[in-house]
Amino acid sequence: MSNEKNVAEQEEAVDTLQNEQSDADVEIVDAEVIEDAPEAGDESEQKIAELQAKLDETENKMLRAQADFDNFKRRSRLDQEAAQKYRAQSLVSEIIPALDNFERALQIEADNDQTKSLLQGMNMVYNQLVQALKNEGVEAINSVGEQFDPHLHQAVMQIEDENYESNSVVEELQKGYKLKDRVIRPAMVKVNQ
Amino acid sequence: MSNEKNVAEQEEAVDTLQNEQSDADVEIVDAEVIEDAPEAGDESEQKIAELQAKLDETENKMLRAQADFDNFKRRSRLDQEAAQKYRAQSLVSEIIPALDNFERALQIEADNDQTKSLLQGMNMVYNQLVQALKNEGVEAINSVGEQFDPHLHQAVMQIEDENYESNSVVEELQKGYKLKDRVIRPAMVKVNQ
Repeated sequence: MSNEKNVAEQEEAVDTLQNEQSDADVEIVDAEVIEDAPEAGDESEQKIAELQAKLDETENKMLRAQADFDNFKRRSRLDQEAAQKYRAQSLVSEIIPALDNFERALQIEADNDQTKSLLQGMNMVYNQLVQALKNEGVEAINSVGEQFDPHLHQAVMQIEDENYESNSVVEELQKGYKLKDRVIRPAMVKVNQ
Repeated sequence: MSNEKNVAEQEEAVDTLQNEQSDADVEIVDAEVIEDAPEAGDESEQKIAELQAKLDETENKMLRAQADFDNFKRRSRLDQEAAQKYRAQSLVSEIIPALDNFERALQIEADNDQTKSLLQGMNMVYNQLVQALKNEGVEAINSVGEQFDPHLHQAVMQIEDENYESNSVVEELQKGYKLKDRVIRPAMVKVNQ
């Protein structure tokens, strides 16, 4: 752009100069114009400048595109890793309430052999389920006896008892679960002040 | 699968096209250099030809990079969609054997009130589990009464009985499961010839 502008200004200057000259001088002026050769050389230089500018621009675009690509690849990889890592989260969240009920049902005390035998079988099923979840990275959150941790525990009751450490979990009211390093459900606990 | 193949074919086509283009460009540039070389203003002409060649090359590289980026984006999206769709597969595969045992345990006939009550509770837990799996896209494969389908059923026994339709499933020996459109485990069945 600035090149084109310079050329236009030069041409205008030459025109002005020519108009100021007398007819007698015209030949000399013409000779000078040819000598200075703004024609052949200039045109090439202009072309070179244009090409160089376009090349620079394209190379910059290219570098930018490459950087965008690299960023996209990196982000995409991180997204995929996270999606892979927590892939079971949705199903795990749905299974946890069933586990709660399973545990409650297992807590009865058998008063006959058939119930005892059924409980035994159901305990095996329960353990198999817990193992399946564990294999996918699901684990119950430790609570009783631990220091209260607001990331892992949700305090729903408080007591004041000198027999327990300060700020420790004294009872678990509902199990909490983690999927790898992500808390799926905090444990509901009773805390000592 | 056919999508991936199409993408691969497209990529190949783009590569071929670009290679052809850059070959063609190189020829033209060479021709210009040879034609213009012996004339005056040699240096400028040569510089222009060099710049033009470099510009063409860079523009081609840029087109190729852009095509690569687009292909990567498309493939990446397809991969993510598939990973998302079947995200629960690993956990589902581990849970299915526990479900088998759960069903077996539920089949006893209660001879007292406590067992009856426990069975009731366990049936609720079982249904809750099945519902959780269903919400993630897991369903049992229909078999008894259906036409035998080798994609869904695994024939482990055969009978010859005029009372059943030919090639139909007459008994299910083990439940099969699908996760959305993917068979996680075929049903083990008895088929009529």
